[in-house]
Amino acid sequence: MDFDFALLKPQERYKLLTGLIVPRPIAWVTSLNQDGSVNAAPFSFFNAMGSDPALLVIGVGNHAPARPKDTAANIKRSGVFVVNLVSEALAEAMNITATEFPPEISEVEVAGLQTVPSVHVAVPRLAQAPAGFECRLHTVLEIGRNRMLIGEVLGAFVQDRLVADVAKLHLKTQELGLIGRMGGRGGYVRTTDLFEMPRVSYEEWKREDGQEP
Amino acid sequence: MDFDFALLKPQERYKLLTGLIVPRPIAWVTSLNQDGSVNAAPFSFFNAMGSDPALLVIGVGNHAPARPKDTAANIKRSGVFVVNLVSEALAEAMNITATEFPPEISEVEVAGLQTVPSVHVAVPRLAQAPAGFECRLHTVLEIGRNRMLIGEVLGAFVQDRLVADVAKLHLKTQELGLIGRMGGRGGYVRTTDLFEMPRVSYEEWKREDGQEP
Repeated sequence: MDFDFALLKPQERYKLLTGLIVPRPIAWVTSLNQDGSVNAAPFSFFNAMGSDPALLVIGVGNHAPARPKDTAANIKRSGVFVVNLVSEALAEAMNITATEFPPEISEVEVAGLQTVPSVHVAVPRLAQAPAGFECRLHTVLEIGRNRMLIGEVLGAFVQDRLVADVAKLHLKTQELGLIGRMGGRGGYVRTTDLFEMPRVSYEEWKREDGQEP
Repeated sequence: MDFDFALLKPQERYKLLTGLIVPRPIAWVTSLNQDGSVNAAPFSFFNAMGSDPALLVIGVGNHAPARPKDTAANIKRSGVFVVNLVSEALAEAMNITATEFPPEISEVEVAGLQTVPSVHVAVPRLAQAPAGFECRLHTVLEIGRNRMLIGEVLGAFVQDRLVADVAKLHLKTQELGLIGRMGGRGGYVRTTDLFEMPRVSYEEWKREDGQEP
């Protein structure tokens, strides 16, 4: 079945994009409101984009999760933000920060979250987050009604217990217990049902398959 | 534990980014080689970025999966590409297309894949893919040694059996059986261990919590 995007409304395109592009990692972004309070909001149009320099991108279009305007305005104004990562234990707290509270209510407080100072940026991170990245805004790209925030990663934080080998930078990725976003209004996936499939080099492939076509 | 990215090599930053930003969706990109043959290669620095217009982004930095140069050059030259999505049944075939074969060997043939014509673009899609997107290149963004390809989605294709309700655009996301990328050289996750957590509106929150802080 084919869907011609020129014939669909943005909300309909959003349904197909979010129903098919799965599993999506979640950036739980902390940023500073104009009054100095901390804003937190989750985004699943998010991924790493490269390592030289280290880049990540967050899409805050009109159909992205809650409070994109606050988050985008805050990041544009201050030039810095923190991407906190979301374990299953934090799922409910994250979901509360997706609610559109009136300005006088702090979603961070309502969700029972504590913040701690960051190392590289003036925006605090979430104390409960198992890991995350401190970022400086590199580029804002506006295409139609979509806004993409490209951040340069200045540093990563990881709870000590999740680092398997500091020298080799081996992490216990599975024990982070991170969740990802699926389709629908509230679909999520745990990172529990794993398998390994190492990349095969051409030399290995030749040995295993015995002959070239 | 904190990691100062200014003190790390690109490969080290790559380890932390890919070990922490999980689960990542996979774009199995088909593009046209200069001789007209079909190139296929997987990328996990990938996500939707918005719906008005519908955008997706693929990071093809120097440490992204195999053949980024071919894919990026092909897309720049032709201006079009297809993002095929990867079910668990296609994992091994996808992995073969990540191998760096010499130019005279077609990874599509070696992997036992068939291609079928697309509707909106001159690049064929993979016949076995359960779903995917036909795209036109919108913008190439080069930052340092990283390259981000931003595509506008012209159409989506989904196997008929995976569409639950055409009018409402409800998809059987779970039955797609898509896999995501985890950390390490060959870590993957199935989209099987799911849970639902609907977004809560402020009105609902007020009713449930009974009082405002």
